[in-house]
Amino acid sequence: MAKDELKLLGGWFSPYALRVQIALNLKGVDYEVIEETLNPKSELLLKSNPVHKKIPVLLHADKPICESGIIVEYIDEVWTHAPSILPQNAYDRANARFWVAYIDDKWLPPMINILIAEDDEAKKPHFEIVEEAAGRLEEVLKKSSSEGKAFFGGDTIGFIDIGFGSFLSWTRVIEKINGRKLLDETKHPSLVQWAETFAAHPAVNGFLPEIDKLIEFSKILKLKLAAAK
Amino acid sequence: MAKDELKLLGGWFSPYALRVQIALNLKGVDYEVIEETLNPKSELLLKSNPVHKKIPVLLHADKPICESGIIVEYIDEVWTHAPSILPQNAYDRANARFWVAYIDDKWLPPMINILIAEDDEAKKPHFEIVEEAAGRLEEVLKKSSSEGKAFFGGDTIGFIDIGFGSFLSWTRVIEKINGRKLLDETKHPSLVQWAETFAAHPAVNGFLPEIDKLIEFSKILKLKLAAAK
Repeated sequence: MAKDELKLLGGWFSPYALRVQIALNLKGVDYEVIEETLNPKSELLLKSNPVHKKIPVLLHADKPICESGIIVEYIDEVWTHAPSILPQNAYDRANARFWVAYIDDKWLPPMINILIAEDDEAKKPHFEIVEEAAGRLEEVLKKSSSEGKAFFGGDTIGFIDIGFGSFLSWTRVIEKINGRKLLDETKHPSLVQWAETFAAHPAVNGFLPEIDKLIEFSKILKLKLAAAK
Repeated sequence: MAKDELKLLGGWFSPYALRVQIALNLKGVDYEVIEETLNPKSELLLKSNPVHKKIPVLLHADKPICESGIIVEYIDEVWTHAPSILPQNAYDRANARFWVAYIDDKWLPPMINILIAEDDEAKKPHFEIVEEAAGRLEEVLKKSSSEGKAFFGGDTIGFIDIGFGSFLSWTRVIEKINGRKLLDETKHPSLVQWAETFAAHPAVNGFLPEIDKLIEFSKILKLKLAAAK
C-alpha cells in the first residue's frame, strides 16, 4: 500500500461512515470506499476492528483507525491544512467535543428506539429525548447564527456540523415513517436552514444516502434489531 | 476569578472527577476542589453543566468544561508542558482515545450492573464483559511492557492510564463485595503490576478514595440506582 493510501471500510447506510467521508472530502484527499454489508462482515473488517467489528474503519497505509469521532479528529490532525474541522482554540475544541458526544448520545439511539418501538406509546419517551435535543441544538446554532455564521463551527463545516449532519438522512427517514417532523420550521428555524446549507455543501452534496432507499433498508434493520433484542 | 484560576466541581467517590485531578496533578497546576454530593446538586453545578447536571466540571477562569475525557484533553492542550498526557503522534493519539472509549463502555457500566444485580445469575453476564475487557487490556499493556514501558502510554502516565486507573478503587470495591478478583495475578500479571505502579505515582498516591469508605458509599448508591431503575 502506498504511503498515504486511504481505504474506508464503510457502508452507504452508515451515518458514522458518512462522517469520515465528509471529513476526507473537506480535506480534499483521495480515498477508496470499500462497501461492507451488515452480514456477513468481511475478513478485512474483522481483522481491522477486532474489538468492535464495526464500520467505519479508516485504513491509512494499512493501519486501522476506528470509531467515527476518533477518525475525524485523526484526519484533522494528519491533514492540517485548511479547512480545520476542530476549532483552533482549546475551549472551543472542548465545546465541539461536548456537543458531538451529546449528539451521539441523544440523537441516533432514540431514533433507533423509535424505529423498533411497537406502538405510539412505546415511541413516546424516545420522541421526547429527540425533541429536547433538537431544542438544545437549536439554541447552540442560534448563538452561532447570531454571530453571522452559517455553521455550528463558524463559517465552514466543523466537528459538530459533521456529527449532527451525518444523521440528517436518518432523521428524514424517521420523520417520513412516522409522519412527524423532528426538525420543525417553527421550533427550529436555525436547524432547518442549516440542514439545507449543510446538504448543499460540496463536501456533502451527493454523499447523503437516498431517503427511500434508506427506508427500505430500515425495514431490514428493524427486523434484525428486534431479533437481537 | 483570576485569569488561570481553576476550580473542580468533583466528588471524592467519582472516578471521573479523579481523572481530572490526576491530570492536573501531572501538570503541576494549582486547583481547588469543590465537593459535590449526590443530592442535592449545587446551584453552581446546575449552572455550569445545565445539560447533564453531572460532575466533574472544571471551571477555568469561570468557563465550564464538562465530561472527564474532554476535560483531560483540554488540560493537556492548555498546559502543553511535559508530561504530555496524550501521545504526540496522531495514530497513537487515536489509539489512546479508542481504548479510553472502550474502558468507558466496558468497565464501569458492567461494574455498576454487578453492584445492583440481585443475585449471581443476574451478575453473570456483567462479570463476563469485565473479564473480556480485562483480557483485552492485559494484551494492550503487555505490548507496552514488552517495549520496557511501565505504563499504557509509555514511560509516564498517559490518557489510557488515567482512564483505566481512575476505576481501580471501584474495581477493588466490586472485588471485595463479591469475593472475586477482576484483575487476577495469573491471568493479568501486567495489569496487576501496573495497578501498583500507578497507585504509587505521586500524581495518584493519596488521591485514590479509601475502599471501605467507598463500600459504605456503594450501599447508598445501590439503593439510589435501584430506585431509579
